[in-house]
Amino acid sequence: MIVEPLHLSRCSINTATLGHREPIGVTIDRIAKAGFGGLAPWRHEVEAAGVSKIARQIRALELKVSGYCRSTYFPAPTREARLANIQSNVRALNDAAELGAECFVMVVGGLPEGNRDLPAARTQVQDGIGALLEAARKLGVRLAIEPLHPMYAGERSVINTLDQANALARELDPHNDGFLGIAVDVYHCWWDARLDALLSSTGKDNRIYAYHVSDWLVPTTDLLLDRGMMGDGVIDLQGFRQRVEHAGYAGMVEVEIFSRDNWWKRPPDEVLQTCAARLQSVC
Amino acid sequence: MIVEPLHLSRCSINTATLGHREPIGVTIDRIAKAGFGGLAPWRHEVEAAGVSKIARQIRALELKVSGYCRSTYFPAPTREARLANIQSNVRALNDAAELGAECFVMVVGGLPEGNRDLPAARTQVQDGIGALLEAARKLGVRLAIEPLHPMYAGERSVINTLDQANALARELDPHNDGFLGIAVDVYHCWWDARLDALLSSTGKDNRIYAYHVSDWLVPTTDLLLDRGMMGDGVIDLQGFRQRVEHAGYAGMVEVEIFSRDNWWKRPPDEVLQTCAARLQSVC
Repeated sequence: MIVEPLHLSRCSINTATLGHREPIGVTIDRIAKAGFGGLAPWRHEVEAAGVSKIARQIRALELKVSGYCRSTYFPAPTREARLANIQSNVRALNDAAELGAECFVMVVGGLPEGNRDLPAARTQVQDGIGALLEAARKLGVRLAIEPLHPMYAGERSVINTLDQANALARELDPHNDGFLGIAVDVYHCWWDARLDALLSSTGKDNRIYAYHVSDWLVPTTDLLLDRGMMGDGVIDLQGFRQRVEHAGYAGMVEVEIFSRDNWWKRPPDEVLQTCAARLQSVC
Repeated sequence: MIVEPLHLSRCSINTATLGHREPIGVTIDRIAKAGFGGLAPWRHEVEAAGVSKIARQIRALELKVSGYCRSTYFPAPTREARLANIQSNVRALNDAAELGAECFVMVVGGLPEGNRDLPAARTQVQDGIGALLEAARKLGVRLAIEPLHPMYAGERSVINTLDQANALARELDPHNDGFLGIAVDVYHCWWDARLDALLSSTGKDNRIYAYHVSDWLVPTTDLLLDRGMMGDGVIDLQGFRQRVEHAGYAGMVEVEIFSRDNWWKRPPDEVLQTCAARLQSVC
C-alpha cells in the first residue's frame, strides 16, 4: 500500500485536542508555530474571544479553518425548542462564514430526554438540516453532517453511519449543489464493514468536506474522553486515508482527540509535536 | 402499538445477569424457583460443575436452554491457533447438544493482538464458522452468530451489524438448512437505522435463533459492564420485540445484563424478581 506522506500544510488541529485549557488566541499561535496548515475551533471559545478578532488572527497567520465546531443539537421535545436550535445554528453559520471555515460541522444530537423514539428524532434532524440549508447557501458555508459512532445514539447523535449521512444528504439535496456533505471521522466509522462502498459512494458524489483522525484504543476506558493518538490504537489509518483520497477527497487531515486522562494533561506543545510526528508517520 | 404481554415461561435468564457469584447449580435453582422458563449458561461454569450433572438438573426442572454461551474467538495470529479455536468450539458444541441448547451463541472475536486488518479478521471468522458448521449439523446444534455493538470491533467481535451477520449466514449456508442463524441482542443493534429491513430480512429467512434484552443507559459509564435493566435506559423494547416477532421469531426472550456496579451487587433473587417484573411490563 502506497500513500503519499502528509505535509503539515495539509494538516489541521481541532482545538479540542489540546483540551481547551488556554485562551483560543494562545492555542492558535501554538498551532501556527508548530507548522500546521489549519485548525478547527469550537464555537464556545470563538464566541468568548470575539469572532472578528479570531478571524483576523487566523488570516494574519495564513491558517485554514478545516471546520467550525459544531451545530447545536436539533432534536427537542417541542417545536419551539427545535426552532430555537435552528436559529442558534444560523448564528453559528454567520461566524463560520466570517472565519472562512471549510464547513460547519453538524453533530446532530441524540434522543430528546425521556424519549425512546429514534425514528422520530431522525425525522427532527432531517427537518432541522433542511431548514438550515437555505441559510448555508446564502452565507456560502458548507454543512458537513458528521455521523457519530453508534455508542452515541442515545445522547449525541442519531446519525450513526456514513450510510445514514449519505442518505440524508441525498434526500435533502438531490442535485448536490455544493452545500450539504459529510465529515468523515475515522473514530466513528472505522469498524464499518461497508466502509469501502460508502466512502466511494460519498466521494463520487463529491460530498466529503472533512476528514478527522485519532485512534481507537484497546481497551477504551471512557465512551467520550478516551480517544487515542494516531498509532496508539487499532485503526488502519493509512488504509483509511487511502480510501478517502481514492474517493476524491483532497482537503485537510484534522486531528481531533478527546483524552481527559492522557493528552489533555500533557503540555500543549508536546501534544502538537506528537500530532505532527504521527501525522507524518502513521496517517 | 399492541404487543402481547410476555409470560415468564417464554423468558430466560442468561446467568451472567447474576454476575457468576454462585455455583451454577444454585443459580439454576433460583431461576426455576422464580418462574422463568429457561436459562442461558456459560461454558466456564458448566464445565466447572460437569456438563452431565447440569444437564440432568436442567431437565429435572423442565427448563429450556435458550442458548449456550459462547464460542471461543476465531481470529488468531497463526493457522495453528485458529484450528485450536475451532476445536475448542467443537468441544463446546458437544456440550451444547447434551444441554439441549436452542443454539450455540457465536461471539466471533476481534482483531488479533497487534493487528489492524479488519477485513482479514473477518475472513478468519468466516472460515472458522464455515469449518464449524459441519460439526454443528452432525450434532444437531444450531449456530447463532451474534453481531456485537461496533464499540467491540477492536477486541470482541468483528461482526458488528445484523447486516454483516445476515450476509455471513447466507454466504456460508445459502440454502438455509437450519443450522446457521443469528442471535439478536437489543443492546448491540438498537441504534441501527436499517433495523426494520434487516430484522425483517433475517426473519423471512427464519434465521433468528435467539433474542436478548437489556437496556442502554444514558450515560453509560463502562463499555462492557454497564448494561441497564430493561426500562432503565433508552431502548424502545416493546417496539423491538414487536419487530422481532413480526419477522417470525417465536422463541424465548433472554435477559443478559452485565452490570458490575449495580445489578451484580444486588441479591440474586432481587435481580430475578426485577427481571420478571420488567419483562412483563416494558419488554
